[in-house]
Amino acid sequence: MAEAELLVCVKCRAGREIPDDGQRPGELLADRLMDARPEGLRVIPVECMSNCDHGCSVAFRGEGRWTFVYGNFTEDDAALVAEGATLYAGTPDGLVPWRSRPEHFKRNCIARIPPLTTATATAPKEAAE
Amino acid sequence: MAEAELLVCVKCRAGREIPDDGQRPGELLADRLMDARPEGLRVIPVECMSNCDHGCSVAFRGEGRWTFVYGNFTEDDAALVAEGATLYAGTPDGLVPWRSRPEHFKRNCIARIPPLTTATATAPKEAAE
Repeated sequence: MAEAELLVCVKCRAGREIPDDGQRPGELLADRLMDARPEGLRVIPVECMSNCDHGCSVAFRGEGRWTFVYGNFTEDDAALVAEGATLYAGTPDGLVPWRSRPEHFKRNCIARIPPLTTATATAPKEAAE
Repeated sequence: MAEAELLVCVKCRAGREIPDDGQRPGELLADRLMDARPEGLRVIPVECMSNCDHGCSVAFRGEGRWTFVYGNFTEDDAALVAEGATLYAGTPDGLVPWRSRPEHFKRNCIARIPPLTTATATAPKEAAE
């Protein structure tokens, strides 16, 4: 199975004013996640995931897996992101049951997208559905 | 090049109360898009894309392409969605320049995700970035 990936938006200001020479919250979060090395995932910096109103943003994805975008993190949430990412990496298809997700992941899912191989996409219900 | 795909969330209530036996706005939108047959894309119904606060939701994606999730459509927006989808299908990588997008697509991008083949993802700036 291909390694799962943890994408982190490095351009995110998390809704704050950041001076031109200041480090953005998204970049800090990405740095900390690269240091944390969450098990079973590769951390990949992305320049803008276009979820700017609800950043910081991360996405979990991988070949043959559902992609999940989660938002509303801060630069201090590296451990929380790593926890959710490790749960995702431990599934074959990316579908962590809703009840098993850490609280932040239950309330801050921005979008989910079925794997490329799926012709008609069905999956267990999301809570909000 | 693999055909681009237009995913439509068929479970979406678009923030309205829908009776149990009523047709959901997302399902209606998907039906109308399948009738519209936008050029260069396959329309795929998806059961919940977890963008429930900003539906109806669609996603454009394809092998080797950036994935874009767009929201805040209604069941009456099939022609608008088809217009944006056709522009997407006409690019090699999914990146329609921000200025060339129909107005709704400029203001209602929920998230964008780089292609699976990208190790470090850079792309032209999004306007909000």
